[in-house]
Amino acid sequence: MNDWLHAPCAVPDAGAAARAAAHQARLTKPAGALGRLESLAVQLAAWQGTDRPSLQRVRACVFAADHGVAAHGVSAYPQAVTAQMVANFLSGGAAASVLAREQGVALEVVNLGTVGPVAEHPGLVNRPIAAMTHDFTTTAAMSGAQRDTALQAGRDAVRRAADTGAQMFIAGEMGIGNTTAAAALAGALLRLPATRLTGPGTGLAPDGIRHKTRIIERALALHGAHCTDPLEALRRLGGFEIAAIAGTALACAQTGLPLLVDGFITTAAVLAACRLQPAVRDWCLFAHASAEPGHQALLQALDAEPLLALGLRLGEGSGALTALPLLRLACATHGAMATFESAKVRERLP
Amino acid sequence: MNDWLHAPCAVPDAGAAARAAAHQARLTKPAGALGRLESLAVQLAAWQGTDRPSLQRVRACVFAADHGVAAHGVSAYPQAVTAQMVANFLSGGAAASVLAREQGVALEVVNLGTVGPVAEHPGLVNRPIAAMTHDFTTTAAMSGAQRDTALQAGRDAVRRAADTGAQMFIAGEMGIGNTTAAAALAGALLRLPATRLTGPGTGLAPDGIRHKTRIIERALALHGAHCTDPLEALRRLGGFEIAAIAGTALACAQTGLPLLVDGFITTAAVLAACRLQPAVRDWCLFAHASAEPGHQALLQALDAEPLLALGLRLGEGSGALTALPLLRLACATHGAMATFESAKVRERLP
Repeated sequence: MNDWLHAPCAVPDAGAAARAAAHQARLTKPAGALGRLESLAVQLAAWQGTDRPSLQRVRACVFAADHGVAAHGVSAYPQAVTAQMVANFLSGGAAASVLAREQGVALEVVNLGTVGPVAEHPGLVNRPIAAMTHDFTTTAAMSGAQRDTALQAGRDAVRRAADTGAQMFIAGEMGIGNTTAAAALAGALLRLPATRLTGPGTGLAPDGIRHKTRIIERALALHGAHCTDPLEALRRLGGFEIAAIAGTALACAQTGLPLLVDGFITTAAVLAACRLQPAVRDWCLFAHASAEPGHQALLQALDAEPLLALGLRLGEGSGALTALPLLRLACATHGAMATFESAKVRERLP
Repeated sequence: MNDWLHAPCAVPDAGAAARAAAHQARLTKPAGALGRLESLAVQLAAWQGTDRPSLQRVRACVFAADHGVAAHGVSAYPQAVTAQMVANFLSGGAAASVLAREQGVALEVVNLGTVGPVAEHPGLVNRPIAAMTHDFTTTAAMSGAQRDTALQAGRDAVRRAADTGAQMFIAGEMGIGNTTAAAALAGALLRLPATRLTGPGTGLAPDGIRHKTRIIERALALHGAHCTDPLEALRRLGGFEIAAIAGTALACAQTGLPLLVDGFITTAAVLAACRLQPAVRDWCLFAHASAEPGHQALLQALDAEPLLALGLRLGEGSGALTALPLLRLACATHGAMATFESAKVRERLP
């Protein structure tokens, strides 16, 4: 049922990257003067297999799910907010909705199971697995079958994106309690203590963070030694939306669709996918460094240099959507600047 | 003739900022979760005097001029490139041209004096002061009258922008040798040694940087003690385009038009303007941290936290144009997100 997880990843096109780099060197600017805009253009060339990449068609998908661990009061917000925010994504009022709309990005919402009711909507893919995960301080967050269903929901979202000709995929998440799940998952994968990975999430005060840290410590004490592989770590400590995002990362890499990685929770999911297949990393671009303190450890483990550091800590894919214009400007300068030859500008002195 | 330099600066609207901050707190996200996008929206509200700021109309102006100090071989490119790049800006092939066009930003080019010939063009404002500045290792870069003419050229560009209803101004520069002038000016204003402020510019190798450092040291030895006020520092060590950009900063602040500050050279010019009138700082937003090493000292002196750090070192306004989408997304989320009330999303727990 989950054989697809082990299907091989696509390989970025080194030839296209080399041709793009050669083109960059002819543009009317000192070599390297556009910094990361240059390397982004070359990277996009490798992903798209063309020396003139473009990013007209970008697809974002927000995965929503509730978490049993929320019963421990690890969030500043009530659990009902997950389903309420699903409605807000769909009616266009959430940050991710606005950021996507402004940029012509198609936004899809996948409901994987929320405590509150979710009404049908044309933009909603309704795939509820359960009202929420189990409380992972006492048992595994989900069954193997539930995890596999969540992983497939991620894969299917990538397939829908690929079917519409998407050139880049953005995965976002919504789920009250999910920084707790992400920190626990990261702790298990990185073998780091909860104190290194726990942060304020939606806005806990210091004593709330201390409480949340103890909850994560309890989860790691129960499950840590059993998380011998990333799929088991996802099952014991993940969430439905986190497993789905791990599935998007695997499917993106298999499909050859680059993934613009959002913040803390998304990066934890991507780390799990990279642990399953290291080549997943070749299809990931990290959009921003979150204000959530645990993000740094994840980024370091993935050898990631995020594009932005704006103190964002919202999730929803909002950080990735905020970084998207940089990628588009990288394509624009790469594709539309004059060359030294065409503009009759003299090149550097010998 | 330069009385206008001392006219008072406008005052940002604290009431509009407070109303914008109150509106931010009602949007469907944890308070502060959009990080700098939130503070940018509030800052723009103060500048525009409205609690719902927008940035449809942005104006960029590239000031071009040549430098006598280029005779010392301080650049990797021949001096002819300045005029050739003016033509490239106007024909749309330069990085700044592409970045502006992609974003619907009006781009104007002001020629303040280049060694090579510059042909007339509808997008060109032709105000040549001289073929280049004097070599400031032996004499002052310009006369007081030349400096004042350059300052006025900057002011006039801001007036043209304001006349078209611009909501933000971007100043860019082009001039072979102008990181040398900017480093010398910064050294005089900050009382820092040339070694702290000299970098590769368009791409000098290490021995080229050492030579450039010695040239700047010679200039500072000759002029440093005489740079008792910022206008005199501009006259002795600046360039026509650098003085013009200082003029834009003063005029922006006087007009109440925010200035999105580009990189090393622009920041040196803005520092001179802020030394003349500290309130100029209230109208400046710093777009990015340049790869040019001296930029850090300037940013620190101006207490600036740039939005981006992408290793850009091109100038032309390219860094400011690259940061512009972030400001527009800040306006979009601020203006179009739902409130907790309108979206019926529950607020945080007490």
